Amino acid sequence: MLNAVRRELPEYIEGYGQVKTFQGANVEQDKPVRRQVVIDKDSVDGNKVLSSLQEAMARCGLTDGMTISFHHHLRNGDHVLNMVLEEAARLGFKNLKIAASSIFPVHAPLVRHMENGVVTGLCTNYISGPVAEAVTHGLLHTPLVMHTHGGRARAIEAGDLSVDVAFLAAPSCDACGNINGVNGPAACGFLGYAIADAHYARRVVAITDNLVEYPNCPVEISQEYVDYVVPVASLGDVQGIISGTTMITRDPVGLRIAQFAAEVIAASGLLKENFSFQTGAGGISLAVAAYVREMMKKQKITGSFASGGITGYLVEMLEEGLFRAVFDVQCFDLLAVESQRRNRRHQGISASFYANPHNKGAVVNNLDVMILGATEIDKDFNVNVTTDSNGVLIGGSGGHSDTAAGAKLSIVVTKLTKVRLPIIRDAVTTITTPGETVDAVVTERGIAVNPRRGDLRQRLEQAGLLVMTIDELQEIAQAMTGKPDSLPPGRDIVAVVEYRDGTVIDVVYKV
Amino acid sequence: MLNAVRRELPEYIEGYGQVKTFQGANVEQDKPVRRQVVIDKDSVDGNKVLSSLQEAMARCGLTDGMTISFHHHLRNGDHVLNMVLEEAARLGFKNLKIAASSIFPVHAPLVRHMENGVVTGLCTNYISGPVAEAVTHGLLHTPLVMHTHGGRARAIEAGDLSVDVAFLAAPSCDACGNINGVNGPAACGFLGYAIADAHYARRVVAITDNLVEYPNCPVEISQEYVDYVVPVASLGDVQGIISGTTMITRDPVGLRIAQFAAEVIAASGLLKENFSFQTGAGGISLAVAAYVREMMKKQKITGSFASGGITGYLVEMLEEGLFRAVFDVQCFDLLAVESQRRNRRHQGISASFYANPHNKGAVVNNLDVMILGATEIDKDFNVNVTTDSNGVLIGGSGGHSDTAAGAKLSIVVTKLTKVRLPIIRDAVTTITTPGETVDAVVTERGIAVNPRRGDLRQRLEQAGLLVMTIDELQEIAQAMTGKPDSLPPGRDIVAVVEYRDGTVIDVVYKV
Repeated sequence: MLNAVRRELPEYIEGYGQVKTFQGANVEQDKPVRRQVVIDKDSVDGNKVLSSLQEAMARCGLTDGMTISFHHHLRNGDHVLNMVLEEAARLGFKNLKIAASSIFPVHAPLVRHMENGVVTGLCTNYISGPVAEAVTHGLLHTPLVMHTHGGRARAIEAGDLSVDVAFLAAPSCDACGNINGVNGPAACGFLGYAIADAHYARRVVAITDNLVEYPNCPVEISQEYVDYVVPVASLGDVQGIISGTTMITRDPVGLRIAQFAAEVIAASGLLKENFSFQTGAGGISLAVAAYVREMMKKQKITGSFASGGITGYLVEMLEEGLFRAVFDVQCFDLLAVESQRRNRRHQGISASFYANPHNKGAVVNNLDVMILGATEIDKDFNVNVTTDSNGVLIGGSGGHSDTAAGAKLSIVVTKLTKVRLPIIRDAVTTITTPGETVDAVVTERGIAVNPRRGDLRQRLEQAGLLVMTIDELQEIAQAMTGKPDSLPPGRDIVAVVEYRDGTVIDVVYKV
Repeated sequence: MLNAVRRELPEYIEGYGQVKTFQGANVEQDKPVRRQVVIDKDSVDGNKVLSSLQEAMARCGLTDGMTISFHHHLRNGDHVLNMVLEEAARLGFKNLKIAASSIFPVHAPLVRHMENGVVTGLCTNYISGPVAEAVTHGLLHTPLVMHTHGGRARAIEAGDLSVDVAFLAAPSCDACGNINGVNGPAACGFLGYAIADAHYARRVVAITDNLVEYPNCPVEISQEYVDYVVPVASLGDVQGIISGTTMITRDPVGLRIAQFAAEVIAASGLLKENFSFQTGAGGISLAVAAYVREMMKKQKITGSFASGGITGYLVEMLEEGLFRAVFDVQCFDLLAVESQRRNRRHQGISASFYANPHNKGAVVNNLDVMILGATEIDKDFNVNVTTDSNGVLIGGSGGHSDTAAGAKLSIVVTKLTKVRLPIIRDAVTTITTPGETVDAVVTERGIAVNPRRGDLRQRLEQAGLLVMTIDELQEIAQAMTGKPDSLPPGRDIVAVVEYRDGTVIDVVYKV
């Protein structure tokens, strides 16, 4: 059957289940729910500290086939997922399902656990490195399930993703399980992606390298939800928190694209008092932020908020009074962690507060402008950030689809070609984000506006910007690179890409 | 049938339902749950501000017979409950059930709504003033249900108390429904008692006299949960926040009792590093805090936390470094509000975090010492703070039963006689808190220790304190007052007193 972005999908996928087809970004299906939680606990007379992960697994009743979850605030410096799986492997557990908010290169040992049958299922919002490659090559027993950041919170709250044991990396924790992310040697900021896990998992284990005296204030995740506390020597390498790309690009082509994007924002009419804004931490995206910063200063605009993964750059804008607040679901650098520790306008938010499409209003719905990246874009403005053009998993939505759906203006910034391949395709390898939620594509050669946004096209043309059709952009690119070969049709599904509402927007085939 | 404190209860109470009998403070029954919530919402494109309460009622689908809820952080200065009910009455609603965390004298207009059939059901944790008297005299159509602070949060989370529309007094709020209690003209501190309502009610309406620009930081209750925002001129009289009794007693008898209680704490062995403590805001209780403060200073003790309704007095102790934190479910004065605004060790907590017996560990479980009041005590140490000796409703548990159950040492401080009546009775008029959770009764004439606590009795005797049996205390009192008449047996049940786990510990009869 075809879904709303014209992908042919089976009705049933072995190891995944019945397919609910994507029907459009704003099609509400059944009335959403937050699930019932049966409170399974030991007696709770205070001290929850256990001596080892082994003891925690035993007390949680962990058995083969269960789902265990992890959050990714320590990013590529995280040792917690590896530590837990090493212990699970040593104890002979098999057939575990991993619900991780993201997977990074540091998680390479997971490949071995997949080979050995310790892990046979995985869902995540973002995946890169050796595990991504292994999954692409069919090493995982059941298809990987890709969520969006908001979609994962939704799935956990709704019960679509049922977590047996959540293992929380706790940078600061007391013996009763009160946790925060702003203190301790592995301080990584508010644990926004761990909140749904903590509230809805059957059992919750806090793993900490900073067991402090009771009570651990500020309390971000409370003792109400935590079963056990396991002290360990180290949660990971705090330098790994830093996102790979948190510097403004110096590449002249990248700067040109960023300047065009800034001009689009200026022309859109949205850059005014109470402006709100999100950008990724990529070099071009940060360059857009720099241009926006200058425009806001010049026009003496006080913005409402900046959101998302937060960098020191946005902290500076907050402190300059350019925004009244930042909404931080994850810190991208240590300046952001430090800011969150001391500034109450640097507001930590859960993944659900950030981006869950089924609550009563997520932060992404309040965004004016979102700056997005892309690996590929098709002529319907569908965007791929999940696979490369060879079909290899290299990322995933994270907040991409969520913010695109929520923001009044979502702008993809990209060079027209990368490694001698055109970015604009007749069809993208994998659809991550539906084109109906993408308003404009900004390249170094020109700007394409989604035909649904005639109003925007008109504004940009009036401002004298270099507007063209997406076909024209594609032609320019193909004149440079030639028409790329298309991938042969895939056969074995290795990943299922869920849209934020839990419907299937695409699948990824074995390479 | 008899319950565990030997009260004869019917199996079924008209207008209440099937009775689950109290079986003891720590008897777990079924595995507890947090309920499923069906997310009933309009489209959530930002602005949720409505022009009137009438519009909010219409949009929420409010109909006759529904349950609407309120929190009591504005205490005897609250205008919100009155405002909503006046509008409901004007619009002709009938048969509404009110779930209010407390009812104060300011809520007197509720009596008229009960007479007119606008309101036919009520549950609350504490009730005093004209509404309490009216209920005692049988004016409410169905029996009043009395919860504890922790029990109300439990009941809402479990679905035992199902709220259709929660009306939240929001001292600071933005157009999307992000709420805090620390800013604005009616700032009253963290809205701990409103959290369960916000998370579990079918619909949530924020009523505010301080609509601020988005986003309203810090966010205590988030836009995820709020349906509508209704601006009004005033939430109430902020002076009414102040609890009636927040001054240390100057009465020499009261001071003597407080000193005895301090000596009990000292002799108990609990007054040491990491000491934790809660006291009510009554004059004798605060005097105990003053003695404890001196002892802590002299012995250079750093306590763990103080909790409960927080006064400026406890804030001073926090700032002197006598406690590492205060856990604040409600501010009792404006100094506490101010402290919470600026100090992250002044930690706001929800009622569930504070006292819910069914989560994975509430703050009350971490208490070393709790200082309690009493209207009457029986020889099994059962305590009444619900009715006076004429059977008239004058209060209720609030956190009384919760803290008594949680604390390692719960001490009732009371004069031996009040208005020429002895406090210690053969049987109390109403059992609020079961004797098995009360460790000692301290009066100006001596100290009685619960026979379950032979260890404590021994420590107090070794310290040379004036320990006697509760019978001896009763005799001394009766020598002064004579034996009081007992109330004639009641017939018509006007209130059902639930223990924190939802079982029935007692009933109140019509007077």
